Amino acid sequence: MAAEPIPTEPHSLDDDPAFPLHRGGKLEMRSTIPVRNKDDLSLAYTPGVARVCTAIADNPELAYDYTWTSKVVAVVTDGTAVLGLGDIGPAASMPVMEGKSLLFKEFADVDSVPIALNCTGVDEIVDTVTRLAPSFGGINLEDISAPRCFEIEDRLRAALDIPVFHDDQHGTAIVALAALKNAARYVGKPLSELRAVVAGAGASGIAVSKMLIEGGIGDIALSDSKGLIYEGRDGLNPVKERIAAITNRSHLKGSTEEALRGADVFIGLSGSTVQESCVATMSDSAIVFALSNPTPEVHPDVARRHAKVVATGRSDYPNQINNVLAFPGIFRGALDVRAHSITEGMKLAAANALAGIVGDDLTADYVIPNPFDDRVAPAVTAAVAAQARAEGVNRV
Amino acid sequence: MAAEPIPTEPHSLDDDPAFPLHRGGKLEMRSTIPVRNKDDLSLAYTPGVARVCTAIADNPELAYDYTWTSKVVAVVTDGTAVLGLGDIGPAASMPVMEGKSLLFKEFADVDSVPIALNCTGVDEIVDTVTRLAPSFGGINLEDISAPRCFEIEDRLRAALDIPVFHDDQHGTAIVALAALKNAARYVGKPLSELRAVVAGAGASGIAVSKMLIEGGIGDIALSDSKGLIYEGRDGLNPVKERIAAITNRSHLKGSTEEALRGADVFIGLSGSTVQESCVATMSDSAIVFALSNPTPEVHPDVARRHAKVVATGRSDYPNQINNVLAFPGIFRGALDVRAHSITEGMKLAAANALAGIVGDDLTADYVIPNPFDDRVAPAVTAAVAAQARAEGVNRV
Repeated sequence: MAAEPIPTEPHSLDDDPAFPLHRGGKLEMRSTIPVRNKDDLSLAYTPGVARVCTAIADNPELAYDYTWTSKVVAVVTDGTAVLGLGDIGPAASMPVMEGKSLLFKEFADVDSVPIALNCTGVDEIVDTVTRLAPSFGGINLEDISAPRCFEIEDRLRAALDIPVFHDDQHGTAIVALAALKNAARYVGKPLSELRAVVAGAGASGIAVSKMLIEGGIGDIALSDSKGLIYEGRDGLNPVKERIAAITNRSHLKGSTEEALRGADVFIGLSGSTVQESCVATMSDSAIVFALSNPTPEVHPDVARRHAKVVATGRSDYPNQINNVLAFPGIFRGALDVRAHSITEGMKLAAANALAGIVGDDLTADYVIPNPFDDRVAPAVTAAVAAQARAEGVNRV
Repeated sequence: MAAEPIPTEPHSLDDDPAFPLHRGGKLEMRSTIPVRNKDDLSLAYTPGVARVCTAIADNPELAYDYTWTSKVVAVVTDGTAVLGLGDIGPAASMPVMEGKSLLFKEFADVDSVPIALNCTGVDEIVDTVTRLAPSFGGINLEDISAPRCFEIEDRLRAALDIPVFHDDQHGTAIVALAALKNAARYVGKPLSELRAVVAGAGASGIAVSKMLIEGGIGDIALSDSKGLIYEGRDGLNPVKERIAAITNRSHLKGSTEEALRGADVFIGLSGSTVQESCVATMSDSAIVFALSNPTPEVHPDVARRHAKVVATGRSDYPNQINNVLAFPGIFRGALDVRAHSITEGMKLAAANALAGIVGDDLTADYVIPNPFDDRVAPAVTAAVAAQARAEGVNRV
């Protein structure tokens, strides 16, 4: 019997409620101090402001105290991998970047500025963000296509002394790890004994795999459009070569579907389709995370016939793997302690904090908190800040 | 008798009220739509936002309607010429850039983002701002040192289809022209018969001179640290060569002080000092604009002994030549009609609107409106928008 079709798509401008909502954009800049008269003006601006500038010129650390840079994040994209839409360019990406800023603000009171660049070269993007950096306390990279996103993030992390975080990689990875920890607990299998198949070797597929390995999973096999990735496969780019060296320890070859036979976990991050018959070949108490949006790799109702825990990226099904569970609190925590960077340890701390919220309420349909659970951002913030302090990457 | 000394300077962080005021910065980002539940989230962010992105990708003009880019200005500096402080670098310039954003918002409800770049090469700045441009509806250049600022503005104006405006040049020039029109009216001399001396050939000196020529002044002689600028003077840079070709029609050589003998107008934009004895040699009914901040070229009380109208850049003396009279309304007007650029005609329209507010209330101490006169921004906005439409540089 066919499952209820998933509602996905588009309306016209006239009858789609998204359009009036987004009209005029979703952000505004506000001033936090009054300018009612010339006395206000001469303190907020010249000549009073000159004394603040001079103090910072003499002691650059004071910029943290006397400008908004220490609390504001740049949300930077080049518009090449926007949601599931692909390379739609910077102008068309802006509604998503503004949306990201909106979520930063609403979920963790993080101020941010959406910046869509009209360049796509790695050098250009790295140079541009490096030049902007004095204006910001952190850089959230967004919707930049793989494999460029890996090099861009690596180079910016090396160049800058503020947090740089590619949310499509690490945000997804942190939430997926948190959900998988709880899912494993629910099905009664230790994480270290799980064998997972990850469909998709783009930004999120690579990052999720790395994070699950750091989290202690048994083994992972990734697949791309040419099938499973294994050491020595012809034509792997350097990123896939490196991931091949640490995944697929049983050296599986062939298709995603073949790898699924007997696998404990399937994580879909590819936008492709997985047949019900393949899901049916997975191990007992299988776990399926069909995360592509808006159309999951396998319909959650179908997956649920064969898997014990099912998660998607959608808000209209249980267990939504939503980055908003991670990135607001991660940046809030990093900014609060003026961290130099967001380390692997801080990401693991965020995943553990997120998983911990579920606690004893764990069920098949509740392996990850709801995005509107107001315990989430404070818990992630506190865990990230504490870990930054423990690792000494904090300034305060 | 000595005039009352002008209070200028610095306190320590402990007893200076500027510091608590600036703590944490002066701006915050706000969201304009609610995200209270998953329905809100699925319209404001995925999947709803994807439909807005797709619509913009299909028709880029829709970005004006469905993102905040059409209403937000980037306030861009490299920190090389900050107030009178000089090259203090990007981090130390941020309090001024935030202050500018504050004024944009408070005076004309213009949203803006302060961006301090850590690069100073002309190519680097032009490339960087060009790459950022899809995220903004206008570019306000700020506190970039001459002569680089001229080439940077020219190249960005040529490259971008949105308003680009270097406020240190044009903001000052527009307000100075407005004040001079009224000052000339007050002393009963037609603008076309005035001979002016402008001390300072930096960004504002050059721009004020050009604007006054466009406004119809009789003649202007500029001076720099080497004395008066005249055609054929050795070692002029290209910017000064061009200004030499349209100023100083009587080919004066020598010092600023010598040129002041018999001059109708002195405009100080150099930070240097002009002796009372020199002001005394100016024509009857002289006009003195001693605009350097915080220390005017000549104390206004001293100037007033010899000049009929005196203006400064300070809020604690009459006739304050304050850029805040111009830039908020200029950008508001340009953004309202989605102008492709800010033309010379739009600048003249702004100056005329500003001068017009004074009207019949004209006195020696009231040649320019008070910055807190709430007629100012609407009048400038309306004049700039109307002129943009008249010239056909508007989109709506």
